[in-house]
Amino acid sequence: MRDVAIIGVGMIPFGRRDQDSLLDMLAYSSLKALDDVSPTGELKVDAVYVGNMGAGILQHQTAVASALVDRLALLPAAADVVENGPASGGSAVKNGVLAVASGYYDVVLVAGGEKMREVTGWRATDFVATLTHPQTEYPYGITLPGMAGMFTQLYMEKYGVTREMLVSIAIKNQEMGALNPYAHVEMAITKEGIFDSPHSVVNNPPVAEPLHLYDACPVSDGSAALVLCPLEMAKKLTKNVPVVVAGFGQATDTHTLAERDDPTDLKAVTLAARQAFERAKLKPEDIDVAELHDAFTILEVAESEHVGFFKKGEGGKAALAGETTFGGKIPINVSGGLKARGHPVGATGVAQVADIVWQLRHDLPADRQVKDAEYGLTVNFGGFGNNVLCFILKRVGS
Amino acid sequence: MRDVAIIGVGMIPFGRRDQDSLLDMLAYSSLKALDDVSPTGELKVDAVYVGNMGAGILQHQTAVASALVDRLALLPAAADVVENGPASGGSAVKNGVLAVASGYYDVVLVAGGEKMREVTGWRATDFVATLTHPQTEYPYGITLPGMAGMFTQLYMEKYGVTREMLVSIAIKNQEMGALNPYAHVEMAITKEGIFDSPHSVVNNPPVAEPLHLYDACPVSDGSAALVLCPLEMAKKLTKNVPVVVAGFGQATDTHTLAERDDPTDLKAVTLAARQAFERAKLKPEDIDVAELHDAFTILEVAESEHVGFFKKGEGGKAALAGETTFGGKIPINVSGGLKARGHPVGATGVAQVADIVWQLRHDLPADRQVKDAEYGLTVNFGGFGNNVLCFILKRVGS
Repeated sequence: MRDVAIIGVGMIPFGRRDQDSLLDMLAYSSLKALDDVSPTGELKVDAVYVGNMGAGILQHQTAVASALVDRLALLPAAADVVENGPASGGSAVKNGVLAVASGYYDVVLVAGGEKMREVTGWRATDFVATLTHPQTEYPYGITLPGMAGMFTQLYMEKYGVTREMLVSIAIKNQEMGALNPYAHVEMAITKEGIFDSPHSVVNNPPVAEPLHLYDACPVSDGSAALVLCPLEMAKKLTKNVPVVVAGFGQATDTHTLAERDDPTDLKAVTLAARQAFERAKLKPEDIDVAELHDAFTILEVAESEHVGFFKKGEGGKAALAGETTFGGKIPINVSGGLKARGHPVGATGVAQVADIVWQLRHDLPADRQVKDAEYGLTVNFGGFGNNVLCFILKRVGS
Repeated sequence: MRDVAIIGVGMIPFGRRDQDSLLDMLAYSSLKALDDVSPTGELKVDAVYVGNMGAGILQHQTAVASALVDRLALLPAAADVVENGPASGGSAVKNGVLAVASGYYDVVLVAGGEKMREVTGWRATDFVATLTHPQTEYPYGITLPGMAGMFTQLYMEKYGVTREMLVSIAIKNQEMGALNPYAHVEMAITKEGIFDSPHSVVNNPPVAEPLHLYDACPVSDGSAALVLCPLEMAKKLTKNVPVVVAGFGQATDTHTLAERDDPTDLKAVTLAARQAFERAKLKPEDIDVAELHDAFTILEVAESEHVGFFKKGEGGKAALAGETTFGGKIPINVSGGLKARGHPVGATGVAQVADIVWQLRHDLPADRQVKDAEYGLTVNFGGFGNNVLCFILKRVGS
């Protein structure tokens, strides 16, 4: 298995991108990633992977990867779409990594994208709910926010997580997002302004109790892309500091949430992280910066515990105590996370990896850079935790 | 790169399967493939790939791979859907092969499936047309049959292909299908009964001139599955004759048909086959049996030439002369092909590989078996030739 390096990274601002088609967005982020490898270089791309969940439903379009290679003038490169619900981006990265690791392909482009704002209101929630069980969940109207609400209630009861802890995460991630030029939500918020405001019943209505609007990620358009190659080719192709995929893991859990012995136990997160740490020969305490899948604030808490940064029941307290921001034990979602960067589902897993690459290259402005970061981790959470990917990246030569 | 063996194969009868969900079909073929490896063995599956084009559009369902691993009790195996239009099955096989070749996963299940008959008439054609260009093709009403009709006209003009040649392929493939228990169309036909019948205007109406109904594959439900592992593990896991993936290729061409210098030149087929032959260190004359993507009769002619079995302009004559059936130069689509087995789009690329595996194991009844077959080839044609996969399989130890 060859070591795989990430040599190029591209992203476009997430948000409302009414003027762009899905293909436009995938092409923009891909061109930025290709240009990032070498602005003057001629790069022969062997294969393209597109992470996308919903082009069929949202755009009535299929085979988007084939369209992208033509648009980018990368013919006759191989091209596939990879779909795994909200972890489609992570799965695209994984298959790109395997393609290079296998020795079959040398230079692989991975682009994740989603154009979700073409549908609004309940239709966006219904779109994501297409991943729920078609007999035991979907017909009864359960949605991902609904699942997250029930999960939060259980987690609060079992582990003593409080609203104050969740609020601290929303505030942290929106503060970070306000510094990120690619973030959808660019507005820092305060406890007094939103959560304790007399207008909070209007400004921050319940989405699925005990989760309110400001606990949830927005519905976004967006795209991100990476260029991968074998580590031994990296220096020839780019001047960027190479970042390698030190390890990754992917694990599944029951389709139906109700079938889990303990619904607060996110087994697939634990297992995916364990696989990644074993491959990387690292431990949670080695990680300097992490991007977790905070589609809802509770998930940042739960994932920070399940990957091993904190003991069960300690993640919320740690967030409230500032242990998950700059200067704390482990800075989490300093990009703003899904909460502020946004969550165009197919893009998210790729964007998380891109943000960690920037951190490990030490490429970010001082107010966003985790100092001397060497190891980074991402969690991309598919389904309601029924298909989860974890990547561990490492700065090379530092 | 490790050698990858196909150690298990499963298929369910294609056709109308109103009683089964997409997930049911994927599960049935997967169980058959797992059982085929060893009826009494305990097989730890590390990863699952599902080839599917349209669950989002046709079933309003996503993340089908995550659902499948749970249904099959294969948790916590990794699981992804791979989509590449009508070559989704081939792309799923490719990514399964890369996953094993990389050394990351040992035992991989690949299942392809589609439930297309939930939509009828123009809606089925519209569904497949979602792969056409969203600005320059789709809005003008061009469909895959329409493209195939224009392609046939050009091919006839340039290479002297005749209706008689195409008719001979329809007759051959339906005759073969009538012997295949998994085929959708089980009715052998004659020239007099269909094509020259006074009722042919009713029985065999034009679909897109010069192609008529009996030139086209049916709209089918169906599923097929494979189990892959490293060749060195094959003997430990199964008593089946191992068949290895000797080589494969995948190539893309312009998204828009009108942008090709010569629309009769299927460059992606040529390139995908060339890559596969180079990897396998074989030549077209080494191949004993082939499954080509005859969604329309003309494609069997064109692909048989583009992969190198016949010179340009000779494929149609060869078919008419019986060179593409038993005892001929190269038996093609002795399964019945898409024309008779059917074309549930996500299943096709997997089913083609499954049929070749049976041939190379010498497992078929005498009237369907190509004697002493050692090497087999498949072509899975995505888009209208804009994303094509070619696999070359080899019987081991023969």
